Amino acid sequence: MMPRPHAVVLVSGGMDSCVTAAIAGRDYDCAFLHLNYGQRTEQRELRAFREIAAHFKATQSLVVSMEHFTAIGGSSLTDRTMPVTPADLHATGIPTSYIPFRNANLLAVAVSWAEVLHAEAVFIGAVEEDSSGYPDCRRSFYDAYNAVIREGTKPDTHIRIVTPLIDLTKAEIVHRGVELRAPLQLTWSCYQREDVACGTCDSCALRLRGFQNAGVADPIMYAVQPDYRI
Amino acid sequence: MMPRPHAVVLVSGGMDSCVTAAIAGRDYDCAFLHLNYGQRTEQRELRAFREIAAHFKATQSLVVSMEHFTAIGGSSLTDRTMPVTPADLHATGIPTSYIPFRNANLLAVAVSWAEVLHAEAVFIGAVEEDSSGYPDCRRSFYDAYNAVIREGTKPDTHIRIVTPLIDLTKAEIVHRGVELRAPLQLTWSCYQREDVACGTCDSCALRLRGFQNAGVADPIMYAVQPDYRI
Repeated sequence: MMPRPHAVVLVSGGMDSCVTAAIAGRDYDCAFLHLNYGQRTEQRELRAFREIAAHFKATQSLVVSMEHFTAIGGSSLTDRTMPVTPADLHATGIPTSYIPFRNANLLAVAVSWAEVLHAEAVFIGAVEEDSSGYPDCRRSFYDAYNAVIREGTKPDTHIRIVTPLIDLTKAEIVHRGVELRAPLQLTWSCYQREDVACGTCDSCALRLRGFQNAGVADPIMYAVQPDYRI
Repeated sequence: MMPRPHAVVLVSGGMDSCVTAAIAGRDYDCAFLHLNYGQRTEQRELRAFREIAAHFKATQSLVVSMEHFTAIGGSSLTDRTMPVTPADLHATGIPTSYIPFRNANLLAVAVSWAEVLHAEAVFIGAVEEDSSGYPDCRRSFYDAYNAVIREGTKPDTHIRIVTPLIDLTKAEIVHRGVELRAPLQLTWSCYQREDVACGTCDSCALRLRGFQNAGVADPIMYAVQPDYRI
């Protein structure tokens, strides 16, 4: 049997990265990378990461703390003096939970590790259409980032960013996760609570709407489950 | 008097970043950013950073530790089990001190901070021709990175990477530093020692060659000063 190529998978502990890991695992031996960046629910996400990595039998797993987002501020996710605004799925513009240029920071760490591991791909579960309007979740951002990798790594390094969910809706991601038997019961998405998911922050609302539109019960516990169907 | 625009300046504590800070300070109010990434001479560089920031009266200064380079390894600068190879200024290829995709990591932090500060520029003292052959010191890398910033930041954010030294030789940088009265006596470049500069690592050799070719005495102390003139 041919040895399989290596990939680094960014795994936050949320639903999207869990489904992404299931997709990556079909073709690659996967090293799992989790980044703490001072987000409110860091500990709960880390537990989800560890349980997901164990489920998928990751070849390696690495947890890195990036302290600078807390020092820099500018987001309700990392600045405890800013409230997490309740979800408004009809709002336009960029929500307060936006962390300036976050994904470029995550990708930089992932590509550095991928270069050392001689990996050929970095998987990230970014979603363009059904996300919160973050500029660093768009396909054009990842296309541009791939050009930076080509210019900024050694000539014998060939790493590309893979975004298998970028064009899917949350409902389609739920279906994909069920189809691939991704362990969605181990995932955590809430921005606000760590005991049970709040059901009302942006991230819970997007997730619940996905499950509701897919007609699938979300296996995790919520404090409340408003009807977000459209 | 019109308020001046803001910039973030990446200041390692070395000669190039010190001259870059002097250039940036002519047109911008500068916030100084220093990143520790587990390099051997971290403490000495940090001292140089603080003294340079004080000299230039930086509007803000921020020191961030990026632990992941030590965890990831792959470079003689951050992996204490790999020796720092003596300088060979005629060698081709990428030296062992190369840290995979390092500058993409530094820029990501700088751009995140710049977005919060509403800064218009990020200055970095990268040098293409006279550097050690690192792929992330080339102009094409920074051009590609500017495209990532355009795609990955808020629509009302306008930040560009500025590399004022990119086409200069080290001798030209020395001349520029002297002309701008940059405090070169406060800078630190050695990869290997923290008491006096070793004079023999890649970084010392490039710096000394620059001063020697410029016909200027380097104001810092060296253990040895081989003749690197060409």
